[in-house]
Amino acid sequence: MTRHARQLSLGAFLMETGHHLAAWRLPDADPRDGLSLPFFVRIAQTAERACFDTVFIADSVAANVGHGAHRANRSDRFEPLTLLAALSAVTSRIGLIATVTTSFNEPYHVARKFASLDHLSGGRAGWNLVTSDNAAEAGNFGRTAHFSHAERYERAREFHDVVTGLWDSWDDDAFVRDQHSGIYYDESKLHVLDHRGPHFSVKGPLNISRAPQGRPVVVQAGASPAGRELAAQTAEVVFTAHPEIESARAFYADIKDRAQAAGRTRDSIRIMPGLSVIVAKTRQEAEDRHAQLQSLVDPEAGRALLARMLGNFDLSAFPLDGPLPDLPLTQSGQQSRQKLLSALAGNEQLTIRQLYLRIAAGRGHFSVVGDAVTVADAMQEWLERDAADGFNVMPAEYTRGFDDFCALVVPELQRRGLFRTHYEGRTLRDHLGLARPAPARRPIPA
Amino acid sequence: MTRHARQLSLGAFLMETGHHLAAWRLPDADPRDGLSLPFFVRIAQTAERACFDTVFIADSVAANVGHGAHRANRSDRFEPLTLLAALSAVTSRIGLIATVTTSFNEPYHVARKFASLDHLSGGRAGWNLVTSDNAAEAGNFGRTAHFSHAERYERAREFHDVVTGLWDSWDDDAFVRDQHSGIYYDESKLHVLDHRGPHFSVKGPLNISRAPQGRPVVVQAGASPAGRELAAQTAEVVFTAHPEIESARAFYADIKDRAQAAGRTRDSIRIMPGLSVIVAKTRQEAEDRHAQLQSLVDPEAGRALLARMLGNFDLSAFPLDGPLPDLPLTQSGQQSRQKLLSALAGNEQLTIRQLYLRIAAGRGHFSVVGDAVTVADAMQEWLERDAADGFNVMPAEYTRGFDDFCALVVPELQRRGLFRTHYEGRTLRDHLGLARPAPARRPIPA
Repeated sequence: MTRHARQLSLGAFLMETGHHLAAWRLPDADPRDGLSLPFFVRIAQTAERACFDTVFIADSVAANVGHGAHRANRSDRFEPLTLLAALSAVTSRIGLIATVTTSFNEPYHVARKFASLDHLSGGRAGWNLVTSDNAAEAGNFGRTAHFSHAERYERAREFHDVVTGLWDSWDDDAFVRDQHSGIYYDESKLHVLDHRGPHFSVKGPLNISRAPQGRPVVVQAGASPAGRELAAQTAEVVFTAHPEIESARAFYADIKDRAQAAGRTRDSIRIMPGLSVIVAKTRQEAEDRHAQLQSLVDPEAGRALLARMLGNFDLSAFPLDGPLPDLPLTQSGQQSRQKLLSALAGNEQLTIRQLYLRIAAGRGHFSVVGDAVTVADAMQEWLERDAADGFNVMPAEYTRGFDDFCALVVPELQRRGLFRTHYEGRTLRDHLGLARPAPARRPIPA
Repeated sequence: MTRHARQLSLGAFLMETGHHLAAWRLPDADPRDGLSLPFFVRIAQTAERACFDTVFIADSVAANVGHGAHRANRSDRFEPLTLLAALSAVTSRIGLIATVTTSFNEPYHVARKFASLDHLSGGRAGWNLVTSDNAAEAGNFGRTAHFSHAERYERAREFHDVVTGLWDSWDDDAFVRDQHSGIYYDESKLHVLDHRGPHFSVKGPLNISRAPQGRPVVVQAGASPAGRELAAQTAEVVFTAHPEIESARAFYADIKDRAQAAGRTRDSIRIMPGLSVIVAKTRQEAEDRHAQLQSLVDPEAGRALLARMLGNFDLSAFPLDGPLPDLPLTQSGQQSRQKLLSALAGNEQLTIRQLYLRIAAGRGHFSVVGDAVTVADAMQEWLERDAADGFNVMPAEYTRGFDDFCALVVPELQRRGLFRTHYEGRTLRDHLGLARPAPARRPIPA
């Protein structure tokens, strides 16, 4: 069945005690694990033993409170860069991708922190560049409203260019550190960015030498036309959410086409949809586990999840067993996810309760419940039919559900030649098959 | 000689390959160590074995370039919070104090990162709150000039209040995480800051539960009147630079008086001057080591260090063996250090070369070169004569010079009953003898 030598990339999408909304309520879960470093060390080391390309953390710069959020374990979590920096000290090969928004940050700090993480980890850092789309985040940064959709992306593009420019402040061989002559760096290999743009003015240089990877890997997850265009121009990995293969194939083709139109090769950008998964030795066991999780979903928590994913609409006035009301297109971001969920509810005539139960495990991502062959078959199909270059794996529960994935699915993929059996390289770029970028040098004004 | 049961607090002031300007040029130094995680792990673990209260990192959000900086190893370094987060995973008791400026940051990010570090480390985080004072930093954040001295401190005070307010977003027992009822947090124990002030508008709450220490320890190093007043009102640890005991005693009394005037106890604020140290088994060995380091100081690097510490004055036009010229008081910060160095040069009639050699190891901090008894005698005198509650130890070289301090001076202090022989508590507050703060609750408007 192997069409070519392509192999999957795999990420472990970290999420408190698991991606299923009710994972923290399982009798064998410790609901304090979401703020436990040893818990995340265990996951990262398990993923590394299974030869995963990377771990990944999403982020929001606001607490998830109100509208039933007190009934879900999504309101207290580590800040991603500090957590991944801690994990860098107790892992040696696996990539470390953290989400940081361009909307409420300064490019100098972001460039510096990821360069620092790349040095700490020996070349394993990745930056998931996102824009922020909700009012709760804006309110924590002196703004009464979020940026408009267009402004967010203009700012994101400039932010990206400043960050990558700062990453190129020093040539790879700038720091000679010659003890005999006393020359620490070669002044001719220092490049001052001196950026002046509509959103940022940043002089540079960065106060850390060029990263082991040249630049940390740039990751994005935008799904709107503006988000896709930004990704096609600047991203090296794209995370994405699709409930089924046909929309994933269309997205895959579109991103690769856009990248090619932007002068890039199709291989220079890796597309990794989320994969919500519950796997067990038998299909029955997996379905039982799923049923157990579904039975633990609190209606208020379920409605809160749905409201948040639709763009902070208050659904409390609508009966749980009635249809999803027609909603105006959200202006506060999450547009693509809102469309996805509305279509899902409409196509299948789902009630509010049915819809939140449908997304309780995977929030709209492709979901598989079954044995290892079933899961591997689905992954192989997505790979071979150009729907995915890999997956961001979203276990319903950490750590048991992830242990099961590594023990059952990974060997099955390896048997099929679809996944590595050992790391061949040392850096995240090595794992992903991405080239190490040369520094971009602006022409010197005459 | 023990006057009372007071014991010293000790910090290990991390600084690339050592505090001496020429440490990286020693034949047994590896000049790449400043960007090596294993190197810092070794230091932190050595400090922890020696029962140090904390490690500490200074910071600047600009590269140290130009004016001879290419001849010193101060231009590439880890970002402090990522480095300390990494160290949190491989240590268990020692405090982790990182410097973060209030001038070019957002309080929400800072509150969150330190809370995250406190959770990662089980209660060992400290924030060295500084203001930024140089144009190179301003230029990296869209400003053509630094803030004025007064504005910096007004902003810093408000920044502090927002950060501590955010740290108090959740009561200590807010997260009940009750698997049976499905209640994750108790809504009545969530407090929304809703701060609106001249510099910041921050809604809150923080997206992480209250820190193990209640609040990470707040550290400051201001020496100007505005800096002292801010410290007296808000700091729990004060780092400070004094070349000799009398100025340290005056500073100590002034800070404690100011704290008392602000309604605090004298014990609620710990004063830890820097201690530049070269120690060996014999005084001769220590002096030889010092002489070796001094012989490796590059004149251009020396003059660059001096220029930077005086507030970025260009000294290249002045002969190395002539006197320090009269300089106008810097407007770009470092005022206190400039005064200290100008006084030192004036009092002792030092040439430029003599002055940079004088500060090459300690940058104006109290410096001791000698055997363990000599070093311990000095530390004991400062403790007993109310010049210090402890020291921020600045070894001329890492790791050898620090290993020597831990092997020679620490046991001597322990023999004298001046330093712990084991950790009695688990948190940085425990080590420092600082109370765990209760959450501040603003009165609810009627």
